[in-house]
Amino acid sequence: MRLGQKNRTLVCLLWQIQFADDMQEFTKFPTKTGRRSLSRSISQSSTDSYSSAASYTDSSDDEVSPREKQQTNSKGSSNFCVKNIKQAEFGRREIEIAEQDMSALISLRKRAQGEKPLAGAKIVGCTHITAQTAVLIETLCALGAQCRWSACNIYSTQNEVAAALAEAGVAVFAWKGESEDDFWWCIDRCVNMDGWQANMILDDGGDLTHWVYKKYPNVFKKIRGIVEESVTGVHRLYQLSKAGKLCVPAMNVNDSVTKQKFDNLYCCRESILDGLKRTTDVMFGGKQVVVCGYGEVGKGCCAALKALGAIVYITEIDPICALQACMDGFRVVKLNEVIRQVDVVITCTGNKNVVTREHLDRMKNSCIVCNMGHSNTEIDVGRLLNLSCSTVPTFVLSITATTQALALIELYNAPEGRYKQDVYLLPKKMDEYVASLHLPSFDAHLTELTDDQAKYLGLNKNGPFKPNYYR
Amino acid sequence: MRLGQKNRTLVCLLWQIQFADDMQEFTKFPTKTGRRSLSRSISQSSTDSYSSAASYTDSSDDEVSPREKQQTNSKGSSNFCVKNIKQAEFGRREIEIAEQDMSALISLRKRAQGEKPLAGAKIVGCTHITAQTAVLIETLCALGAQCRWSACNIYSTQNEVAAALAEAGVAVFAWKGESEDDFWWCIDRCVNMDGWQANMILDDGGDLTHWVYKKYPNVFKKIRGIVEESVTGVHRLYQLSKAGKLCVPAMNVNDSVTKQKFDNLYCCRESILDGLKRTTDVMFGGKQVVVCGYGEVGKGCCAALKALGAIVYITEIDPICALQACMDGFRVVKLNEVIRQVDVVITCTGNKNVVTREHLDRMKNSCIVCNMGHSNTEIDVGRLLNLSCSTVPTFVLSITATTQALALIELYNAPEGRYKQDVYLLPKKMDEYVASLHLPSFDAHLTELTDDQAKYLGLNKNGPFKPNYYR
Amino acid sequence: MRLGQKNRTLVCLLWQIQFADDMQEFTKFPTKTGRRSLSRSISQSSTDSYSSAASYTDSSDDEVSPREKQQTNSKGSSNFCVKNIKQAEFGRREIEIAEQDMSALISLRKRAQGEKPLAGAKIVGCTHITAQTAVLIETLCALGAQCRWSACNIYSTQNEVAAALAEAGVAVFAWKGESEDDFWWCIDRCVNMDGWQANMILDDGGDLTHWVYKKYPNVFKKIRGIVEESVTGVHRLYQLSKAGKLCVPAMNVNDSVTKQKFDNLYCCRESILDGLKRTTDVMFGGKQVVVCGYGEVGKGCCAALKALGAIVYITEIDPICALQACMDGFRVVKLNEVIRQVDVVITCTGNKNVVTREHLDRMKNSCIVCNMGHSNTEIDVGRLLNLSCSTVPTFVLSITATTQALALIELYNAPEGRYKQDVYLLPKKMDEYVASLHLPSFDAHLTELTDDQAKYLGLNKNGPFKPNYYR
Amino acid sequence: MRLGQKNRTLVCLLWQIQFADDMQEFTKFPTKTGRRSLSRSISQSSTDSYSSAASYTDSSDDEVSPREKQQTNSKGSSNFCVKNIKQAEFGRREIEIAEQDMSALISLRKRAQGEKPLAGAKIVGCTHITAQTAVLIETLCALGAQCRWSACNIYSTQNEVAAALAEAGVAVFAWKGESEDDFWWCIDRCVNMDGWQANMILDDGGDLTHWVYKKYPNVFKKIRGIVEESVTGVHRLYQLSKAGKLCVPAMNVNDSVTKQKFDNLYCCRESILDGLKRTTDVMFGGKQVVVCGYGEVGKGCCAALKALGAIVYITEIDPICALQACMDGFRVVKLNEVIRQVDVVITCTGNKNVVTREHLDRMKNSCIVCNMGHSNTEIDVGRLLNLSCSTVPTFVLSITATTQALALIELYNAPEGRYKQDVYLLPKKMDEYVASLHLPSFDAHLTELTDDQAKYLGLNKNGPFKPNYYR
Repeated sequence: MRLGQKNRTLVCLLWQIQFADDMQEFTKFPTKTGRRSLSRSISQSSTDSYSSAASYTDSSDDEVSPREKQQTNSKGSSNFCVKNIKQAEFGRREIEIAEQDMSALISLRKRAQGEKPLAGAKIVGCTHITAQTAVLIETLCALGAQCRWSACNIYSTQNEVAAALAEAGVAVFAWKGESEDDFWWCIDRCVNMDGWQANMILDDGGDLTHWVYKKYPNVFKKIRGIVEESVTGVHRLYQLSKAGKLCVPAMNVNDSVTKQKFDNLYCCRESILDGLKRTTDVMFGGKQVVVCGYGEVGKGCCAALKALGAIVYITEIDPICALQACMDGFRVVKLNEVIRQVDVVITCTGNKNVVTREHLDRMKNSCIVCNMGHSNTEIDVGRLLNLSCSTVPTFVLSITATTQALALIELYNAPEGRYKQDVYLLPKKMDEYVASLHLPSFDAHLTELTDDQAKYLGLNKNGPFKPNYYR
Repeated sequence: MRLGQKNRTLVCLLWQIQFADDMQEFTKFPTKTGRRSLSRSISQSSTDSYSSAASYTDSSDDEVSPREKQQTNSKGSSNFCVKNIKQAEFGRREIEIAEQDMSALISLRKRAQGEKPLAGAKIVGCTHITAQTAVLIETLCALGAQCRWSACNIYSTQNEVAAALAEAGVAVFAWKGESEDDFWWCIDRCVNMDGWQANMILDDGGDLTHWVYKKYPNVFKKIRGIVEESVTGVHRLYQLSKAGKLCVPAMNVNDSVTKQKFDNLYCCRESILDGLKRTTDVMFGGKQVVVCGYGEVGKGCCAALKALGAIVYITEIDPICALQACMDGFRVVKLNEVIRQVDVVITCTGNKNVVTREHLDRMKNSCIVCNMGHSNTEIDVGRLLNLSCSTVPTFVLSITATTQALALIELYNAPEGRYKQDVYLLPKKMDEYVASLHLPSFDAHLTELTDDQAKYLGLNKNGPFKPNYYR
Repeated sequence: MRLGQKNRTLVCLLWQIQFADDMQEFTKFPTKTGRRSLSRSISQSSTDSYSSAASYTDSSDDEVSPREKQQTNSKGSSNFCVKNIKQAEFGRREIEIAEQDMSALISLRKRAQGEKPLAGAKIVGCTHITAQTAVLIETLCALGAQCRWSACNIYSTQNEVAAALAEAGVAVFAWKGESEDDFWWCIDRCVNMDGWQANMILDDGGDLTHWVYKKYPNVFKKIRGIVEESVTGVHRLYQLSKAGKLCVPAMNVNDSVTKQKFDNLYCCRESILDGLKRTTDVMFGGKQVVVCGYGEVGKGCCAALKALGAIVYITEIDPICALQACMDGFRVVKLNEVIRQVDVVITCTGNKNVVTREHLDRMKNSCIVCNMGHSNTEIDVGRLLNLSCSTVPTFVLSITATTQALALIELYNAPEGRYKQDVYLLPKKMDEYVASLHLPSFDAHLTELTDDQAKYLGLNKNGPFKPNYYR
Repeated sequence: MRLGQKNRTLVCLLWQIQFADDMQEFTKFPTKTGRRSLSRSISQSSTDSYSSAASYTDSSDDEVSPREKQQTNSKGSSNFCVKNIKQAEFGRREIEIAEQDMSALISLRKRAQGEKPLAGAKIVGCTHITAQTAVLIETLCALGAQCRWSACNIYSTQNEVAAALAEAGVAVFAWKGESEDDFWWCIDRCVNMDGWQANMILDDGGDLTHWVYKKYPNVFKKIRGIVEESVTGVHRLYQLSKAGKLCVPAMNVNDSVTKQKFDNLYCCRESILDGLKRTTDVMFGGKQVVVCGYGEVGKGCCAALKALGAIVYITEIDPICALQACMDGFRVVKLNEVIRQVDVVITCTGNKNVVTREHLDRMKNSCIVCNMGHSNTEIDVGRLLNLSCSTVPTFVLSITATTQALALIELYNAPEGRYKQDVYLLPKKMDEYVASLHLPSFDAHLTELTDDQAKYLGLNKNGPFKPNYYR
């Protein structure tokens, strides 16, 4: 079962070492376990990355299940199931604000709207349902597609955004706090509709794909392709492919260069500071920090921490990354060597049991332990306070969403035979196109090759500029 | 009237440019005017710096004024007036957490406890009442002083902390949401008590000092000195001194070197990022930012923003600071030259009308305007969204509090004649002592001069190491 | 003809814009055309990267060609041809100093000396002949190989080092200032020797390989493989391979990850500052600099310049690199937009005519133009002063040399059939081994995977840790 | 005796630890004691800061003492004594190049030329005689002064520059390689001339002032003031003042804010890298460095080294500076704790015996020891290689020279009574003026206060903007 799986880049789990007597206090105040900044820590249900805007209306809402409500939008349609259609206006405002930082998608709407490259596309989608994905969904519609949508996570839906989508005519089936049964019911409502058959799948985690495989294998006869965004979902696709069971082309957008750089290096450079500050009020200057793993995530964390005056140590298993850490000015140590002296431990390895119970026992009181990696298993959690927090700038989500839109367009319009029943990376040229759509928001001006220069370099003037193996 | 005056270093006011149609929306939703991150924006009442831990219990509390309640602590004393004495246990927990980052004060307690340097001191205090100041007050008590305390701000009191202090026997008169009348009533209760007469004043803003001057001038006969922390309060003291009306020595702790560096350069380096992230979710990478003023506050902001990938421009009036900005890699421009292109405007000048209505009119939509300066007048506020936010690490407050404690000790124990009826800076040696008390938390090891070296340099081996004019 | 070709990473060509009247001065003083720092500028013959230690003895040497001299070393051998065997003692000192920064090779000698992995290997080599390559050659000998060596560049030979090699028994044929005829004569003397036939080739530029193809094709019957280090040489090998003419396996060590990172990002981060300072005494603080190209070379230059207070602009053709530049805090512009205002122009593109005559005409007087790219064609040189300079830390050369040694060992010991008649990249595991050999000099401690973790990650505990496509 | 004293900011002395067997080598090759970069190390005579352009003509010159030569310039004057008047043309070229980076002085010439503020001034000067000081001297002349000049250092004179000054009509008495007797003879020739009596003194080191006191005390009757630039000279002036023997006003330009910042923080940030690279080819990435002293010089060194990937430790005696080091991300240690592991030791203390023989004995082989401080006594030099190097950008010298010119103008034009027989700091307003004259070369645009803002801040619109105690 994969309910509630976390999207890796966006979650920053934090704990803080607290010794025994403190723990007794906690027992007495079970709902107030945090430090003074507890009021700012975000509750379990919102640890998921997309839910940075808490649904302030939840508490006042009635407790009737959306499945039992009869709701119609202002045009009389009931082709949806959301918490409360009346929240649409506020949700619309959220979407409009998200649009401001997703100008690449807006620009894509404008550039491609004339030709409607998704005319005829019938897309079933299963993603987080937030203001940012709403901008994606409405872009797909603007390009000609029909969409039916459910949530890939039982907690992450912004109810007011779902309402706004429903009000705008999208067939959306999602609310915050679905049960496991609700979850599959919503997916089923998207796929299983009389007189409408999907020809494209946009998935995040692979649950939708899994459901179609299991319940409606015939649907694949019409499907032109699957676009999958998550590590987990991509992994499942490669397994299907290996087993010879993948019956349509699939696009792995998780590993596109632009997305990777933003999800890892740049996003973590910003979010490590934010995540720690929001939950702990730690001052970075002079703090001793050990970062486990010096891949892209680790590099991003280290750059930010060093810049703000922290003293950073690295642990690595890979000599190439270790040598890079040396050249970047970090001491490469084993965790044992510094565990007693550090104020913060950050794991970015993707490995398991990187921080063991023994390490935890040797840490200073009030040492902060933070997991920035994609595995929940990096830390052998024990005597720890969970101060989880998460955030990701809309701009980063814009890159993901634009990549998804382009992958859908590419698969939908690809000439017969370009893509087989296999998993593909986004063509480098489209990767570059995603990047170029985001340059205007920085007022960045690309230089163009002259004919002569293009010839000298053996490149097409319009790209791709990178070999396919570049990353 | 000086109610609710803001402490300058801790307040970061933010606005965001929004064009006309948005404004109409706002009229309709007066209580939800923010962008999606509204839920994280902190309300007006909490813009004050010390209130980062919101009092989560307020809403459930009854609405009876504390002045009309009869409360006693567990030892039977009623010598206090707080919101709800029953919150003491949670307040105690908050104080204990603050103690973790204020080890300098704890260390001062230990070093000075034997000799009780404040034995006999009777201190009236008027400051923000938060976990951090509670650590200060309890340190003063541990060193032998008797304390009576009120709040210098009608909004900033953490009620549960006030309760904890009252429970511990401190005569505290303060709650969150005092009326103006309450404010002066509390101050009066501190000063005016039968059989107890203050001999030291610790003030933050000068209201307490002002009240004593006005109502109880005779009290000054016993007062050995005033310790004042705020810019405003210090300004008022210098005016009194100029007018020949200052009748006791006063210590200006606001301008001590250690405090200044932390309140400005280092604190702003951290808080600019935090303040912007919490309220706006802006991504720093690639953002164009203009910072008005390249003093210590501006230098701190610029260092952090540059480190996170922002492109920073500076405006300056002073050629020396301008030249420093050049050497530090920033273009020095007039605000007009860049106002159309920047994504963020940050004022750090202490001047007024730095950002004018005309500038506001020329900004990009969704440009963020942020005031980091000590003047509320830097920006000619008009068509702006107020997304205020504030935070300051406990460590910085620890430096302020330690400086205050040492200033009280110095004034209280100074031999007759060392201090006249004038405003003094903290002696450099005590400034260095404050710094040295904070080094252990960084595991920093000072080098000691040999006799020979001290002689060569013409210094005492134990300092002071700086000339008095150093800053 | 490829005589005197420049090794790309090591050359930093500089020019400075000077207007007309200055140029007249230059006509009058043809030998003193530089600015005041002329005495520090390095002459044309030493622009080649390896010759940072000028041969101070040249001027006093006689002018007889080494080919006409009869020289024997102290053991009576004449199996070499160098400028002056008597310089051996000083050359030995140079080699010993180089060994201090090439501890990886020394460590390789120690680790592999017992088993003599190159026992039986007969290597002909053609590289720069410097203290650093001498350490490589003597390492190969220590591992069991016999070596015959010539210079790949007519200017770059350090005569005293060649003498030291000859004295130590290496058959070396090289001196500084060879004629073209000398150049091929030396190569021929290495290959063509009675009773000795090479079975390995180590080449830098492809001239040696070319000569064997042309003159002694039968030699390839015994050759187990070619190791090629230069961009040019690798290009020639791929062409041979494409044409079906490559008759032995070849190893492209130029593109190994470790070498690439050091040759580009890290090396340029250090050498851009050094190169500019040595030739121009420019102060970096506040200087406006445009860097053309934001690949690894450009990234290294920009990081260093930004850190020292320069204001850096980027030009790019590739949107992915352009977006990275934005996120790293650089404005992305077209060269035209900033050419009038910048103080320094640096090209790192590998493209041609990036800086055109028209750009040159619009630059400020005394604007510095610097080519860090691998193409001499980036700048349309015209009215410019040539202030060339070059340097590369021994540590970087150590990485190259270690990679070459490992490639030779791999090819020489590979089981029949592992390598076909094709061009190969160094296996990732050996790349990681090169990195690991350099970690001790940073006192860096690698973490080892537990069995459990290795299994979880699907990796061998000893690596490789990177996929083969990683770079 | 103060011949050849070193100007503190410009000298970077380097040594490298070498163990016993190496030392024997050195004995055998006494003239080649360096490592391979020896050819780039700068000889003892040029360690002085101003002599970065070696006089390439020395060797070919005849050996007759300039005092015995009869030379006339092209206008027939013999009122000078230089090495070779025929070098004037090349010297003029050097001066013109220096003018390019000293636009502040050129701009001062233009702004002040109309009113000739130095009309009537008769200045005797004693400074380094280099292209940069030539620009100063010619500026003084352009402003109306008559000048007679000698060298403050027996080695630092650029002979061709002296020739150019003589050719231009300045009475200059200086050459490279003066004997001690020559040194005083030159000073005497400047002061002691029939029919000409100095009314201003510009001194660097105090030797000229000393000579006038000793030999021509009556000259002081006409002297309006002394401008002194060096630490040593200023020290001597304060001693005279203390002893009541200072009989004219003196201006201490060494301690002006602008000069201090550039001489220390900014200059060292650039020169530490340059100095180490030129002499040692060290790669900074990953190097462990300990910097003794975290004043302005230390801060500059640390910022640069950290930026280039070095791992930096600090030693400090002063807790305030130590706390700053912590906040800036450096571990504060005692030298003993890290001496065994560091690759580079840099002293910036101004103290003596900071690095002791015992420390030297415990260093790693090939550890580099570098003195950036103003005291030659910081390191207990023993078993060390001297690899001295020095450089300072012309821009920094421009700030010094401009400050000197303004100090002369201020003293010469000050109304009777403004300055007493005491040592003064440059008025803050003039300090700001020096800074403002250097802004155009950065294309920096100052913002001007409105009347309203100036009133609000209580400042004059034109400055000074800083209190006098600012530094």
